[in-house]
Amino acid sequence: VTQQSSALDAAVATAVVPLSAARERAAALDAADPLAHVRGRFTLPPGLVYLDGNSLGALPAHVPAAVDDVVRRQWGQDLITSWNANDWWGAPERAGEKVARLIGAEPGSVLVTDSTTVDLFKVVVSAARLRPGRDVLVVEPDAFPTDQYVVDAVAELTGLTSRRVAAHDLPAALADGGPDGLAGRVAAVVLSLVDYRTGELLDLPALTAAVHGAGGLVVWDLSHAAGAVPVGLAEHGADFAVGCGYKYLNGGPGAPAYVYAAPRHQEASGSPLAGWHGHARPFAMEGTYAPAQGISRFRDGTPPLLSMLALESALEVFADLSIAQVRARSLSLTSWLVELADAHLPELEVVTPREPGRRGSQVSLRHPDAYAVVQALIARGVVGDFREPDIVRLGLAPLYVTHADVVATVEHLRAVLDAGEHRDERYALRSRVT
Amino acid sequence: VTQQSSALDAAVATAVVPLSAARERAAALDAADPLAHVRGRFTLPPGLVYLDGNSLGALPAHVPAAVDDVVRRQWGQDLITSWNANDWWGAPERAGEKVARLIGAEPGSVLVTDSTTVDLFKVVVSAARLRPGRDVLVVEPDAFPTDQYVVDAVAELTGLTSRRVAAHDLPAALADGGPDGLAGRVAAVVLSLVDYRTGELLDLPALTAAVHGAGGLVVWDLSHAAGAVPVGLAEHGADFAVGCGYKYLNGGPGAPAYVYAAPRHQEASGSPLAGWHGHARPFAMEGTYAPAQGISRFRDGTPPLLSMLALESALEVFADLSIAQVRARSLSLTSWLVELADAHLPELEVVTPREPGRRGSQVSLRHPDAYAVVQALIARGVVGDFREPDIVRLGLAPLYVTHADVVATVEHLRAVLDAGEHRDERYALRSRVT
Repeated sequence: VTQQSSALDAAVATAVVPLSAARERAAALDAADPLAHVRGRFTLPPGLVYLDGNSLGALPAHVPAAVDDVVRRQWGQDLITSWNANDWWGAPERAGEKVARLIGAEPGSVLVTDSTTVDLFKVVVSAARLRPGRDVLVVEPDAFPTDQYVVDAVAELTGLTSRRVAAHDLPAALADGGPDGLAGRVAAVVLSLVDYRTGELLDLPALTAAVHGAGGLVVWDLSHAAGAVPVGLAEHGADFAVGCGYKYLNGGPGAPAYVYAAPRHQEASGSPLAGWHGHARPFAMEGTYAPAQGISRFRDGTPPLLSMLALESALEVFADLSIAQVRARSLSLTSWLVELADAHLPELEVVTPREPGRRGSQVSLRHPDAYAVVQALIARGVVGDFREPDIVRLGLAPLYVTHADVVATVEHLRAVLDAGEHRDERYALRSRVT
Repeated sequence: VTQQSSALDAAVATAVVPLSAARERAAALDAADPLAHVRGRFTLPPGLVYLDGNSLGALPAHVPAAVDDVVRRQWGQDLITSWNANDWWGAPERAGEKVARLIGAEPGSVLVTDSTTVDLFKVVVSAARLRPGRDVLVVEPDAFPTDQYVVDAVAELTGLTSRRVAAHDLPAALADGGPDGLAGRVAAVVLSLVDYRTGELLDLPALTAAVHGAGGLVVWDLSHAAGAVPVGLAEHGADFAVGCGYKYLNGGPGAPAYVYAAPRHQEASGSPLAGWHGHARPFAMEGTYAPAQGISRFRDGTPPLLSMLALESALEVFADLSIAQVRARSLSLTSWLVELADAHLPELEVVTPREPGRRGSQVSLRHPDAYAVVQALIARGVVGDFREPDIVRLGLAPLYVTHADVVATVEHLRAVLDAGEHRDERYALRSRVT
């Protein structure tokens, strides 16, 4: 109670501090931003402050015409010949190459296919098979639920043991003689480069080395990282990775995911689902599976081409951008929001690491009424999202969110809290999808 | 050589028989056809005879606008709110209900999700788990390759045995004391209702009963059946089924597949891939998997919504049609082609069963130069496809192929063979995708 009262006192105190100076500063930052023009590549509703690009990326302005061409010409007119004439067959590898550049992967090591869930299943099974005799799969207790479920599911199917270890405890747990006895037993560890809830960015080089030091393989989930932070899979010797296509990659709702397998692992890994698109000679219609060479062996069924080609088209937005530029803008935006939140939103605790090197492209703020705060914010035209149990999650997609958007967000949050809009009874019930 | 010479003699003999009478008959059949107007619901290139709807269904004319709405309004304007506002969340179940009607499935027993490969993996694992202690999975030696690969893959992952048995040998092989010793050991049998190569339609009621009689479960692959022939899953007590959305369902290239689980099996089955969309409380973000109720437990990752919603929209074509009507038209078309092929194409052997009750919606013709014949036919604007080793495959999608198309096809085939167009050196090399 004391804490709440002091928070309210603080709110009253900060409410009188004008944000006009911040608006001027934001305008200057946006004007000086070398990527400011990139926002024009997206279609965003006028007036909306969209801070949920980490859940569904905005629509690149050129994509509707590209999809319409796929539907009307490629499907409607070229019909079945499109597999050759428009190279539908090569789309998973083509889109994969475009993603590879964004995550620092070797050419020929990334494929766009299926969903993150299905791809994670493939690489966890692959990793386990590459470490026969080792019986433990590790995932973080706070990992995105799917990552935990898939690790458990693979363990159940293959007779292995699934164990939860937090990333921060991993080096100690994996050290020789560590208390968990994991060293020597660990087959694979699944880690999220950026935590979906807190926005924390893990140390990929150090954790990869720690897992390798114990003889295990590491699978990186890049869903909340790719397209916003540098990854460097090849440089740091990662084994496998997956990630979704519809967040910072802007591939559209449910865009297919991508899978990465280090070239050194490809010959001994692949899709345990074994569909004809992953066969070495798919049109020979052979009765026995023989995997294709290279990353193509992670193919299985026919890919959903409207969604696949929308993603491939959307990735063009990145064609002339470096991830270093993107990262610089992302950090400028998140630092700006942290600074303003500290100054103007004392009721909200900044959960995301303040150290830039440990921060993804979102800022998560804790509030006991987080769900209602998010709803009230949405009603004001600022779209963030809520994550259990008490997180206001604000994604700062670096290609189209502006420093001015950040100021507007803080102003609206301040107004919501000052007017108690989050106490509206409409927000007492939580809706299914937020 | 003798066989070839006589075939050539026959070709010369039939070449002089005019097909003009057939054209008149076709015009009369098309004029009297109660489904003749349905062709107008599709966009087809003028003059093209499209006999590959069993590989990629034609574009329904209303779908481009529906997809454009998904892209521009639902994604571009409504953004993340579309999960609720446009009920993206409910799309797999909604589309599933539309498919259920076409395959005679109970309400709440069909879900549109993933690819046929992935869905087959789910139901084969589910079936195996429902029959603990039984150690054999059966698939046909001539089944579509994916079906064979998935059965082998599941067997490998779960320590079961994969065996090939042709559908025609199945009743004897499953009988008590049968020579294969399968009775008592079989966990699941995967069967294709319509063979992708020959077009043969299996006896679903009899084969389902035979597998059940041995204590096993049956998984039906409906890819080449749904939308063209009656299936009757509920009526005949089938256990599981899968099928693709892009053939007779016209859902677009790589449209998501569907999965059927009989209501009696749902509580004890589900997706072994375990993604968050299949969780009972997906937004509670729990660390342990608890499957949703009913068919929704076959969900896993986020579905590819552009492809998913295109399929859902495409299924509207069937809204006012009964499968009995569709089947009647299909049989009229295939019978017509068999009749004309017998009369005018003696060099080509009709592989598809002549008995209507054993025939899907395609006619397969055997020719030693089948690949080249198909290419020469395509050059004339008649699109069929080639299947190894010697099959000219002509799909007669009953919603838009006409009796006149069938006559044109036979005329063009006759002309190709008469002029030796299939001996063109361009067709000596087989391209990757046909």
